[in-house]
Amino acid sequence: MSILNGLDEASRASLGLEMHGFAANLFPICRSITGNGIRQTLGHIKAQISLNTFDVPSGKRVFDWTVPKEWNIRDAYIADPAGKRVVDFQKCNLHVLNYSVPVNEKMLLSKLKGHLFTIPEHPDWIPYRTSYYKEDWGFCLTHHQMTQLKDGEYGVRIDSTLQDGFLTYGECFLAGRTREEILISCHACHPSLANDNLSGVTVATFLAKHLAGRDLRYSYRFLFIPGTIGAITWLARNREAVERIRHGLVLTCIGDAGGFHYKKSRRGNAEIDRAAAHVLRHCGEEAKILEFSPYGYDERQYCSPGFNLPVGCLMRSVWGTFPEYHTSADNLEFIRPLKLADSLRVCAAILDVLENNRCYRNELPYGEPQLGRRGLYGGEAGGEEIMARLWVLNLSDGHHTLLDIAEQSGIVFSRICAAAELLCEKGLLSVASDDQLKSTV
Amino acid sequence: MSILNGLDEASRASLGLEMHGFAANLFPICRSITGNGIRQTLGHIKAQISLNTFDVPSGKRVFDWTVPKEWNIRDAYIADPAGKRVVDFQKCNLHVLNYSVPVNEKMLLSKLKGHLFTIPEHPDWIPYRTSYYKEDWGFCLTHHQMTQLKDGEYGVRIDSTLQDGFLTYGECFLAGRTREEILISCHACHPSLANDNLSGVTVATFLAKHLAGRDLRYSYRFLFIPGTIGAITWLARNREAVERIRHGLVLTCIGDAGGFHYKKSRRGNAEIDRAAAHVLRHCGEEAKILEFSPYGYDERQYCSPGFNLPVGCLMRSVWGTFPEYHTSADNLEFIRPLKLADSLRVCAAILDVLENNRCYRNELPYGEPQLGRRGLYGGEAGGEEIMARLWVLNLSDGHHTLLDIAEQSGIVFSRICAAAELLCEKGLLSVASDDQLKSTV
Amino acid sequence: MSILNGLDEASRASLGLEMHGFAANLFPICRSITGNGIRQTLGHIKAQISLNTFDVPSGKRVFDWTVPKEWNIRDAYIADPAGKRVVDFQKCNLHVLNYSVPVNEKMLLSKLKGHLFTIPEHPDWIPYRTSYYKEDWGFCLTHHQMTQLKDGEYGVRIDSTLQDGFLTYGECFLAGRTREEILISCHACHPSLANDNLSGVTVATFLAKHLAGRDLRYSYRFLFIPGTIGAITWLARNREAVERIRHGLVLTCIGDAGGFHYKKSRRGNAEIDRAAAHVLRHCGEEAKILEFSPYGYDERQYCSPGFNLPVGCLMRSVWGTFPEYHTSADNLEFIRPLKLADSLRVCAAILDVLENNRCYRNELPYGEPQLGRRGLYGGEAGGEEIMARLWVLNLSDGHHTLLDIAEQSGIVFSRICAAAELLCEKGLLSVASDDQLKSTV
Repeated sequence: MSILNGLDEASRASLGLEMHGFAANLFPICRSITGNGIRQTLGHIKAQISLNTFDVPSGKRVFDWTVPKEWNIRDAYIADPAGKRVVDFQKCNLHVLNYSVPVNEKMLLSKLKGHLFTIPEHPDWIPYRTSYYKEDWGFCLTHHQMTQLKDGEYGVRIDSTLQDGFLTYGECFLAGRTREEILISCHACHPSLANDNLSGVTVATFLAKHLAGRDLRYSYRFLFIPGTIGAITWLARNREAVERIRHGLVLTCIGDAGGFHYKKSRRGNAEIDRAAAHVLRHCGEEAKILEFSPYGYDERQYCSPGFNLPVGCLMRSVWGTFPEYHTSADNLEFIRPLKLADSLRVCAAILDVLENNRCYRNELPYGEPQLGRRGLYGGEAGGEEIMARLWVLNLSDGHHTLLDIAEQSGIVFSRICAAAELLCEKGLLSVASDDQLKSTV
Repeated sequence: MSILNGLDEASRASLGLEMHGFAANLFPICRSITGNGIRQTLGHIKAQISLNTFDVPSGKRVFDWTVPKEWNIRDAYIADPAGKRVVDFQKCNLHVLNYSVPVNEKMLLSKLKGHLFTIPEHPDWIPYRTSYYKEDWGFCLTHHQMTQLKDGEYGVRIDSTLQDGFLTYGECFLAGRTREEILISCHACHPSLANDNLSGVTVATFLAKHLAGRDLRYSYRFLFIPGTIGAITWLARNREAVERIRHGLVLTCIGDAGGFHYKKSRRGNAEIDRAAAHVLRHCGEEAKILEFSPYGYDERQYCSPGFNLPVGCLMRSVWGTFPEYHTSADNLEFIRPLKLADSLRVCAAILDVLENNRCYRNELPYGEPQLGRRGLYGGEAGGEEIMARLWVLNLSDGHHTLLDIAEQSGIVFSRICAAAELLCEKGLLSVASDDQLKSTV
Repeated sequence: MSILNGLDEASRASLGLEMHGFAANLFPICRSITGNGIRQTLGHIKAQISLNTFDVPSGKRVFDWTVPKEWNIRDAYIADPAGKRVVDFQKCNLHVLNYSVPVNEKMLLSKLKGHLFTIPEHPDWIPYRTSYYKEDWGFCLTHHQMTQLKDGEYGVRIDSTLQDGFLTYGECFLAGRTREEILISCHACHPSLANDNLSGVTVATFLAKHLAGRDLRYSYRFLFIPGTIGAITWLARNREAVERIRHGLVLTCIGDAGGFHYKKSRRGNAEIDRAAAHVLRHCGEEAKILEFSPYGYDERQYCSPGFNLPVGCLMRSVWGTFPEYHTSADNLEFIRPLKLADSLRVCAAILDVLENNRCYRNELPYGEPQLGRRGLYGGEAGGEEIMARLWVLNLSDGHHTLLDIAEQSGIVFSRICAAAELLCEKGLLSVASDDQLKSTV
């Protein structure tokens, strides 16, 4: 069984365009950690995959946190003394400080300036700012816009509501042969920002779509959640599911032109960490492995010491390190169709390792079996194919997984896995671990 | 006790010439994995050391393999249309595909060409080819010879026999103070190829000759066997001896001018692996340590998962990496007298480590003993000699072997060992482990 | 609690001068491993800190050693044929071979020369030489002095005594909250040599002075002892105190302008080794970590296998590696006030790590606690301050010490420690280990 099956090179271009189109549809929506924006986004996802949505009421305690009031916004603008909209939420939802409380006032520019945010070093870009947990209001604008504001009295209007409601998140569950779960989590709370994190939402959605209906060893749980509070809420409400998580990935900033970065789980040598490192070593793109740190996205919550889940974070460019991060320049041009498709392929390759990684036992462990008379030693097979067979036979002592063998031999996992399957067919190898059976539903 | 004793620098040149002369006597013999050639070779070895030979009949099952029919050859040639021998086994036994079935035919060049092997990039060299486990026939010739063949009808004659007989191998056993064994194995099945593996046969023979009659901690078993099938046959027939193997070395390609290569055992950190790495680090020649891989020579069989013996492989140039490999250019000029002698010295140094490596206990472990009043701290002794004493005293807590101490201190084992012996004499040190006694005969 | 408190940057210059002045007072004294010189030195130290002195009689067996006779000297000189003192102990106490037996003779230059020591490569420097355990006499002089000696009869006078007496050492004990001890040891037996080891004596004295009266977790024992025989004598007489040593430092050659060197304890990964490495990594000066070796100063005795104490050695330039070592050029100019002060600060920083290093437990380990509402997440706090809190929360699972966290995060221990204290105040963290209570007096 290969999850990569169907994600072949030929379909890369069309798949990338389809993924990019999906992200483009989500792009204009004004999302936040609560409210209609994220619900509308989940609706789009639900059109692609089987998705359950959950509404958690404002005020609900989740560990040390409280589900906040629900925020919605219809309109927002700054009007100049002549009444002309000089900063307009309708043109770009980044213009409003996310979670701004309602405002409807006239004020002098000098006072207004205390609520304005720009990026002087990138005078054409609008910054993205939030104030979730402290009631405030503000506008984000380009530095050019700001410098053109003349003294005078401005009309300031934010037509938002911040009141009791719900935190909404989506979950897609795919049952596998065992109840052991792989968690794929992405934050879906940022407004018109493409790489952070429509890229993650898109890759997760297409991954779920690709896995649906396949015969899977693991069960899969895809989470589309608001950052931080969403992960904490989900963890607080799903203690039993948490127990079943064997591996996990947070997907974020995964559509841009940069090389891959995988940030290890807190454990540092979990199977997901080794699987991701192996796949990235062989992925044909630049790739770096980062040590765990308690900062970043929702791996912070999954890897808090009470849970310490084996969850890493797969990215291309790392949040905070590229200038477009959290600005209007993180737009649909910043993410690339082919990069989205290749990110999907890399995710699938990582899952392929997890799905197929197990220990085997060489049935003829004394000396080498005579491969020649079984047609397994022919020159036609090519050197690495034979080496893969010899490595699998040599290390299949019930203690080495196929991933161990791939790492030790330097041969890509898929080839090691194919060798193991062929040797099983020929009766030279058998599965040593019955882990598949132990936790079957 | 030092095995190196007698292999001193002064005798290097004459020893090398003696070893090269031994190899030169064996060179012309047409060996194969069975037949008179290997028996004749074992006869030459028997003239040097105490050797038992064993005949295992064709058809005998050995693990997954079957002892093949015995092959012998008297003559082989290709005669041109005028009847002139243009390829002649009498001139070089590499000319015939090893294990060729008998042929006596006339055929057109076009048909004959399907049975000819050359090396176009080295047009003056004859390749070495075999077909042990698939009945076939063929000739190996220089590319120049091939290009000079004109169209026409050729006489093709291989006067060989392939019939039930025996697989023959030789064993030299030297009893030590314990029944624990060190295995030295070399393949003796290649025809006129010098480095691969008359070099291994020669070094093993002279090593056995040098060890004979000495007071040894370990018992030694030297195997002169056909590659692959010989090792498998020996393993299948000697399960009890296998249990007693504590360390082992496969010797191959060990006479050329290249630096040393030691390929680690499957265990990767066996005492033999550490001893070999230590000796090579201090041997004064270039030396590389290679990780285990399940390809190569008979270490493949000794390190199969059912046995997983601590057997490494000592080489100079690595098989397959030098152009002369498996060609007529691997001749008596390709191996050098001094290199053979130095390979013998390195083997002896490795065995010296194994023979002398044990844990000691400092008898005055509280503070330093006063070396000065025992004449052990004198300036005349030279810095490293005193450092060796201090290191041995400091680390001899019953848990560090002399090899551990040599590695940690960076001081060569022989000097550490000499320090330990002197400290024992002075009553400052005693043997901590009674491993010598435990398994005494 | 910070030991560094009071050793602030501002007072560096005046502290350095005070330390240098202390060393300058000790400089002229003719010390040796026994005798009035070391007693006079201990007297100076006693004026600064609470010091007990111990007298161990000559002839006393201490492990493998014997306390030697006591050596004292009043005068020594070589007088030329005209009666003029050409080498004069009164000008520099290095001129006499330390531990010289009495002499009062006339002899020809040719005979005298067998007792003279110079350094031809540094013709203006007087070497420092000793003959503690072999009765002998001699003079050390500059090479220039030597070359100016003309043939003739010289008067040779050493007015010394070598007779039964005492070996004297000093001990400063500071009781902490627990009986677990930190050992600070320095040799105080060298005559007019500044870096080796008035620097160590000075840093240790000022460290003890600084710690006195503070509320300390550990008890501290400062040893001012003659090298080798002093450490062995102390170890032989204090088996119970030895049992309580948890960490230790030998201080030597710690006042010159070179960068720091820390030589690890025999254990190699003791807490003192990690604490010292951490502090040196962040100390702002060049610093190197050296592996343990059984040569050097009194760590040799503390790290002998019977004790194997976690005692490292902190130096600036390493003994034996700088040309001034054991010569008259190791004088008061060779040690620098600011370097003495910074060495003191580094020692205090290492002790701060040991004093404060323990395991904590995150009280809200499921997801992150909401730092924002506690004022712990504000932008004003600066990035690394927040990161320190996140690291402490994430790794405080009862298994990671603060030093583990400092190492893994790359953040300096003091900041990690401050974060832990703040989080404790806020109720988010508590001490996990009760190691403080276990061994309280």
